[in-house]
Amino acid sequence: MNKNIFQKIIHNEILAYKVAENSDHLAFLDIHPIKIGHTLVISKKSNRDKIFSLSEKEFISIMYFTRKIALGIEKVIPCNRVGIFVMGFEIPHVHIHLIPMDKESDGNFSKKRIVLSSKNFKFLSEKIKNSIRKI
Amino acid sequence: MNKNIFQKIIHNEILAYKVAENSDHLAFLDIHPIKIGHTLVISKKSNRDKIFSLSEKEFISIMYFTRKIALGIEKVIPCNRVGIFVMGFEIPHVHIHLIPMDKESDGNFSKKRIVLSSKNFKFLSEKIKNSIRKI
Repeated sequence: MNKNIFQKIIHNEILAYKVAENSDHLAFLDIHPIKIGHTLVISKKSNRDKIFSLSEKEFISIMYFTRKIALGIEKVIPCNRVGIFVMGFEIPHVHIHLIPMDKESDGNFSKKRIVLSSKNFKFLSEKIKNSIRKI
Repeated sequence: MNKNIFQKIIHNEILAYKVAENSDHLAFLDIHPIKIGHTLVISKKSNRDKIFSLSEKEFISIMYFTRKIALGIEKVIPCNRVGIFVMGFEIPHVHIHLIPMDKESDGNFSKKRIVLSSKNFKFLSEKIKNSIRKI
């Protein structure tokens, strides 16, 4: 079976700017962010495509993890709030977008994405990682 | 204090096409749906503005309820999946959008909203309500 990009990230086969990880979940910066701090949360265990195909236990577990990540982002990325977006048509592997927002249009996925250097991605991921550790 | 539209719905001061309710949460059809079956989940107890200002317990509790509503919608509204959207700039009261989707652009909030008659809203809410009851 061909691995999708998230499965490759889970298996460290491609680089990702990780911000948190536990035995079941992984959070890393979206490589094509809509806003600075745009983060993805995925399950490392389930490779199901749709969030509501997860069992109740899996769903609640990823939501616990997601909340912690969002609180960590909110502490270091200036924003009014962190929004949650779950669609998942691009990559068939459950993923939750967390996006720092100041207005509703900050959640518009058809917007031009932000380009960041690897140095900036690294700086940003370290900043968020340290913040999540303190949650 | 002036009540916002969600508080008025909670207190039955304005009509809403409800699909599920428990002591802490309420789900009803969005009156300006992006897609048929577009549903809102709100907390009846907390009137906080931002989802990540909820306590861990409150957050997990609303997510349990949300999952049930989404599974109920998926069973009766033809769609590829139900997406989750939490932004909340319009009304300062935590609310979760559940949107039946077939493609990513079905989650574009700047799209023209669907207009439904009260008869159609009623039919749709009964259908989803009955489906949720069986979850």
